[in-house]
Amino acid sequence: MKDIIVQKFGGTSVADTDKIKNVAKAVIREKNLGHNVVVVVSAMGHTTDILMKLAGEITSKPSSRELDMLLSTGEGVSIALLAMALQEQGCDAVSMNAMQVGIITEKVHTKARILDIKTDKITKHLEEGKVVVIAGFQGITDDFEITTLGRGGSDTSAVALAGVLKAKRCDIYTDVEGVYTTDPRIVPCASKLAEISYDEMMELASGGANVLHPRAVETAMTHNTPVRVRSTFKLDDIGTLILGVDKMEIHKPVTGVALDRERIRIVVCDVQDNPGTAAILFDGLAKENISVDMIIQSYARKDLNTNDIAFTMEKADLDKAMQVLRNVKLELGYSRVFVDEKIAKISIVGAGMVGRPGIAAKMFRTLANLGINIKMIATSDIKISCLVDIEKADEAVSVLHSVFGLDSDEIADVKGDLPNV
Amino acid sequence: MKDIIVQKFGGTSVADTDKIKNVAKAVIREKNLGHNVVVVVSAMGHTTDILMKLAGEITSKPSSRELDMLLSTGEGVSIALLAMALQEQGCDAVSMNAMQVGIITEKVHTKARILDIKTDKITKHLEEGKVVVIAGFQGITDDFEITTLGRGGSDTSAVALAGVLKAKRCDIYTDVEGVYTTDPRIVPCASKLAEISYDEMMELASGGANVLHPRAVETAMTHNTPVRVRSTFKLDDIGTLILGVDKMEIHKPVTGVALDRERIRIVVCDVQDNPGTAAILFDGLAKENISVDMIIQSYARKDLNTNDIAFTMEKADLDKAMQVLRNVKLELGYSRVFVDEKIAKISIVGAGMVGRPGIAAKMFRTLANLGINIKMIATSDIKISCLVDIEKADEAVSVLHSVFGLDSDEIADVKGDLPNV
Repeated sequence: MKDIIVQKFGGTSVADTDKIKNVAKAVIREKNLGHNVVVVVSAMGHTTDILMKLAGEITSKPSSRELDMLLSTGEGVSIALLAMALQEQGCDAVSMNAMQVGIITEKVHTKARILDIKTDKITKHLEEGKVVVIAGFQGITDDFEITTLGRGGSDTSAVALAGVLKAKRCDIYTDVEGVYTTDPRIVPCASKLAEISYDEMMELASGGANVLHPRAVETAMTHNTPVRVRSTFKLDDIGTLILGVDKMEIHKPVTGVALDRERIRIVVCDVQDNPGTAAILFDGLAKENISVDMIIQSYARKDLNTNDIAFTMEKADLDKAMQVLRNVKLELGYSRVFVDEKIAKISIVGAGMVGRPGIAAKMFRTLANLGINIKMIATSDIKISCLVDIEKADEAVSVLHSVFGLDSDEIADVKGDLPNV
Repeated sequence: MKDIIVQKFGGTSVADTDKIKNVAKAVIREKNLGHNVVVVVSAMGHTTDILMKLAGEITSKPSSRELDMLLSTGEGVSIALLAMALQEQGCDAVSMNAMQVGIITEKVHTKARILDIKTDKITKHLEEGKVVVIAGFQGITDDFEITTLGRGGSDTSAVALAGVLKAKRCDIYTDVEGVYTTDPRIVPCASKLAEISYDEMMELASGGANVLHPRAVETAMTHNTPVRVRSTFKLDDIGTLILGVDKMEIHKPVTGVALDRERIRIVVCDVQDNPGTAAILFDGLAKENISVDMIIQSYARKDLNTNDIAFTMEKADLDKAMQVLRNVKLELGYSRVFVDEKIAKISIVGAGMVGRPGIAAKMFRTLANLGINIKMIATSDIKISCLVDIEKADEAVSVLHSVFGLDSDEIADVKGDLPNV
């Protein structure tokens, strides 16, 4: 059989019937290159908002099962319309929803993970020369309950399908032109990356990038499927290829600079230094589904045998976190809690920094030269993150971008709502 | 287990979220009477029009498979919202689409017939005390293709579900208050029937009534399920009960008067009277899916051994019928074809007219007294139909309604777009 290309088009790309016709053209273009094509689409434009508004008129706390039933109708519309548009342009096509394909997920509503995807029907249609148009974002459990995959769901559907179908490549069409070295709205001379490794993409994405959801990147990495992020509106631009580090041609020490403004820092002072106190705190947070990012424990008063524990987390979870802290006050015996909302996390990411300690030192020195105080530091094999004052964040990103040689000669042409890496 | 009541609410009854909340009240009211309740709903208000408009923007000839995929999304929205509204009002509820229930149809898109309905999952939910909200109008084939049931589809879904679930009754909630002796817009003193037999309802319905589709009536008759047609907006009004003639309490010779303006008469003159000529003509029409209603064959010229064949059919099929007539001209050897578009069919219907020849005579005499010429007559056990000049039709219906003792003392309160019987 011919090589399979999976193409994914998001809600903006199928927002109206004219855009759907354009998507059909992009699909046919790929098919004419000699490929079998599987297309994954999201719901049209603002469909989800409209459906959520209807639900909101009925109840302030819709059951997650019924919410999934409601939201999954959105892709039913877009797959049928795209199949019609392909047929109208003379291309044999068939639409399939998650039930018809057999995209099996856990029985967790509104944020299910894919467990298995059946390929027999898709393969049969491809062998008959058809383009197969598949509903993203949705799945079914093994007892036919409808689920949705949550944020980044359609991307994950596409990449997972590409994986099980052993596709040559998964192309994520979006309204940005690729992955940039940093957010071009902050640093206008940010450059578009030709390629980036899964690991780097994960670190950039979880550091605040919105081009491709970390779940989708993780899924691509599992199947070792190359993913190309490219623009729906500039079909000649090949965008950015995300692939295994072993397949990369270019190895720079630093690939990109990420900025995350959505976090806060909490410092819990004078925690009794008994075995298990940290576990009590972070277990409590985990039970409330609060995702903690950077953690630092340091001696506060050696004489009193107490520690300070500082950590960062998402702003939105503050109220829940404070409740957890009240609940564990007796066990932890802390004196005070400080909340610091005016922080930003800046990360430099690069698969090439492994074993190059000079990179970290260069980052710290650059920030020091700018008079920026580093409040916390965290490192991984391919990332160094510093917590700084939010007022200084943009300047810091811009200078680091330049210092690590990422500036482009051209000014990035940025449009659309989606922030870039 | 408690008795099951199936309730069906059409698109007008679930047109917006306020109306959906009212439907939830009607459901809970039925449940509080001590019944297990299964609810069948159509898509919200103008959803189908909106979806058809989108399809129309893409192609003038959408494939019927993709059309079914597109249209079936409509009920997904309404079932989820109604289940949410029930839950919000404290009533445990679960929505199910055709795939989840297992409403199996033939593999014919846009007008499939139901072959089988699984009851195990519905029964399980009912036993757990839940209201089950089911998508009308849609089905699936045994290989998971999505189908729709065509006109009157949701009514048919509801009645078929009531049948397989051995429900005590199927309540069809609509925007009219029941079945009337004739169209109240023509005869303001038309009276609402307390009950009517399946047969009578079929004859009235196929004679132009729009309250309940003949397919739904036929399905009810097959399962011998009582069906109540009642108003969504007057829950205290019990509407009209449709049931087996053996269960009826009232037996009037004439139950109602039906008027059908949508037919034309075609007269094929001087057809050679050889064996099989009529078969050639009507086979040809059947192959084009043209439904023929009344048929009369009469000697035209005994000396030349020719007949005139006259029949009535729907106006919309005229072009196709003329093509068929051209195709069979050589075999039939007819001289001319007359098309009469200015006709109407008036029928009096009543299970009690069996074996009462006086009824027919009374109808003919009444029309004669009005100076109305009868162009064709057709009779069945429970119906006598006369073809008359369309100009005279309203007057004829009004007088027949009075002559057969159907006039009410009250003026019918008619609103909404749906014509009545």
